[in-house]
Amino acid sequence: MRIAIDAMGGDNAPHSNVDGALAAAIEWQDVDIILVGDQAQIEPLLHGKEIPANLTIQHASEIISSDDEPVKAVRHKKDASMVVAGRMLKEGHADAMISAGNTGALMTTGLLVVGRMAGIERPALAPMIPTLDDVGVLALDLGANMDSKSQHLAQYGLMGSIYRQKVQGIAKPRVGLLNVGVEPGKGNELTKEAFPLLQEMPIHFIGNVEARDVMTGNCDVLVCDGFAGNILLKTLEGTAGAMFSLLKEQFNQSLKSKIGAAILMPQLKALKKKLDYSETGGAPLLGLSSLVMKSHGSSNGTAIKNAVRQTRIAIVNELVPSISKEISGK
Amino acid sequence: MRIAIDAMGGDNAPHSNVDGALAAAIEWQDVDIILVGDQAQIEPLLHGKEIPANLTIQHASEIISSDDEPVKAVRHKKDASMVVAGRMLKEGHADAMISAGNTGALMTTGLLVVGRMAGIERPALAPMIPTLDDVGVLALDLGANMDSKSQHLAQYGLMGSIYRQKVQGIAKPRVGLLNVGVEPGKGNELTKEAFPLLQEMPIHFIGNVEARDVMTGNCDVLVCDGFAGNILLKTLEGTAGAMFSLLKEQFNQSLKSKIGAAILMPQLKALKKKLDYSETGGAPLLGLSSLVMKSHGSSNGTAIKNAVRQTRIAIVNELVPSISKEISGK
Repeated sequence: MRIAIDAMGGDNAPHSNVDGALAAAIEWQDVDIILVGDQAQIEPLLHGKEIPANLTIQHASEIISSDDEPVKAVRHKKDASMVVAGRMLKEGHADAMISAGNTGALMTTGLLVVGRMAGIERPALAPMIPTLDDVGVLALDLGANMDSKSQHLAQYGLMGSIYRQKVQGIAKPRVGLLNVGVEPGKGNELTKEAFPLLQEMPIHFIGNVEARDVMTGNCDVLVCDGFAGNILLKTLEGTAGAMFSLLKEQFNQSLKSKIGAAILMPQLKALKKKLDYSETGGAPLLGLSSLVMKSHGSSNGTAIKNAVRQTRIAIVNELVPSISKEISGK
Repeated sequence: MRIAIDAMGGDNAPHSNVDGALAAAIEWQDVDIILVGDQAQIEPLLHGKEIPANLTIQHASEIISSDDEPVKAVRHKKDASMVVAGRMLKEGHADAMISAGNTGALMTTGLLVVGRMAGIERPALAPMIPTLDDVGVLALDLGANMDSKSQHLAQYGLMGSIYRQKVQGIAKPRVGLLNVGVEPGKGNELTKEAFPLLQEMPIHFIGNVEARDVMTGNCDVLVCDGFAGNILLKTLEGTAGAMFSLLKEQFNQSLKSKIGAAILMPQLKALKKKLDYSETGGAPLLGLSSLVMKSHGSSNGTAIKNAVRQTRIAIVNELVPSISKEISGK
């Protein structure tokens, strides 16, 4: 199998991407890794190291930065590392790609360069949201589409369920619909329409899930439209941040509380890490003709290697053909 | 002025409602308070106390419970305390009402019994969301309507702004639109359409606000549809709850951390209280022909008295006529 890695995307590119790619190539001999990016920048980073035969470079002269306007960048920078990697998928020169670059541009690359899977109307971005039990919940769509229709939500449920089965080994993933109450019949027009469609899908649909219960880990896949998903994820992030600010303020009130806080520092740090969804690894963009994996912008070498691990499992377990089969079977 | 209090609604009814009503009647001689509910239950609670002349009872034989289906209950229990209070507003026997009862039934009473203000399509429920600076943000709509249109959002912005001016004394309330990014042009169809409409309103519209920044107190009024608002409020509640669970778990890991946690207990309790939105008092139902105030279900006597304080200020400062004037002027 061949995995293209965008060498130039992310805060720590290209060195972390090159480090991660090298480590992954050494670990998994069955994966051909293609580093896509500026040869003049990549080669010095590999200099003096033993390069395994399954690691190669595909030169690309341009870079899409985090400030670039997504659609414009993808349309105009034809030789950007991300776009070149996408084209390799489209043309059959790679089976999957990984990028830590501009999220909007990656979604645009997915849509315009890689292309949708037949039968899928809207591909979805599916990151993991942290839960109390450390397992996490795969939430989709998290921002690829702002206005979803009920049939899109039903497809998100199916794709998310197959992902958790094939890549994360959950035999019977519990799929929940983000809603304002648990009773069937609750919600806005979108969720009320999506509920019966999700019931008809070949998944273990457990019904509506309230936002307050998501972090308890009561489902494995959370279905939502991109707008509501964004509100959920950012409120989670904002509340956790606000609480740490408040804790800090409270803990600085007296010498006594400062001592208490000093004692608890390791626990507080562990908690912060637990709630940081950027720690939870790559987010697949599901519903494309090949797998596109978004690695967090702040990815280090280990994160890139972990994204390869995840992508490799997805390929071995035939994630994309499995989704395609279920979608065309509907 | 005359304020009707639903004596039978809420977890601590009727005794807390009666206590609060009595304390309010003593404090504000310019308010006539009418306790609406079962005379046989209310009178013993007042027995032996000096009853001020501005406190009276309006008998109502039925009660809407928290388990009642809202629309059905309001339609069938014609002599329920909540419905009777609503009818007093409709018929001009009271200027405002307060209830700690079933929220859905109260919204239904507002719509079907009290009636909408001319020019308002959708009344909105507007509770306060806690912020880091302790000021709080008035968010609307929080659950009265699941499917809002852009013109509804614009009216929410106007009503919320007038409420914060008239009742909370903020000269120029900052009105923000809950959205997925701060740039104009971001969002789903609804928020993209609402943005220019809010710009045209006679308010201080500051543009889009992201969910992650709401708790920093960067606006005084947060405009959202009922679905997104519910996701925001419940994620906030769920995240805070999850963090306290995690803190507890982390703090129990060793004797050392237990000691640290014991030292910090007062600070942690203060933080928990700060984040509890049920502590932030009554939520007005805006856009009705008279003011309906929702007091939290767990209200004690002090909370009921505080709701009277808020309602009295709203009447003194002509909240409802001010909204009506602005709406009809548009």
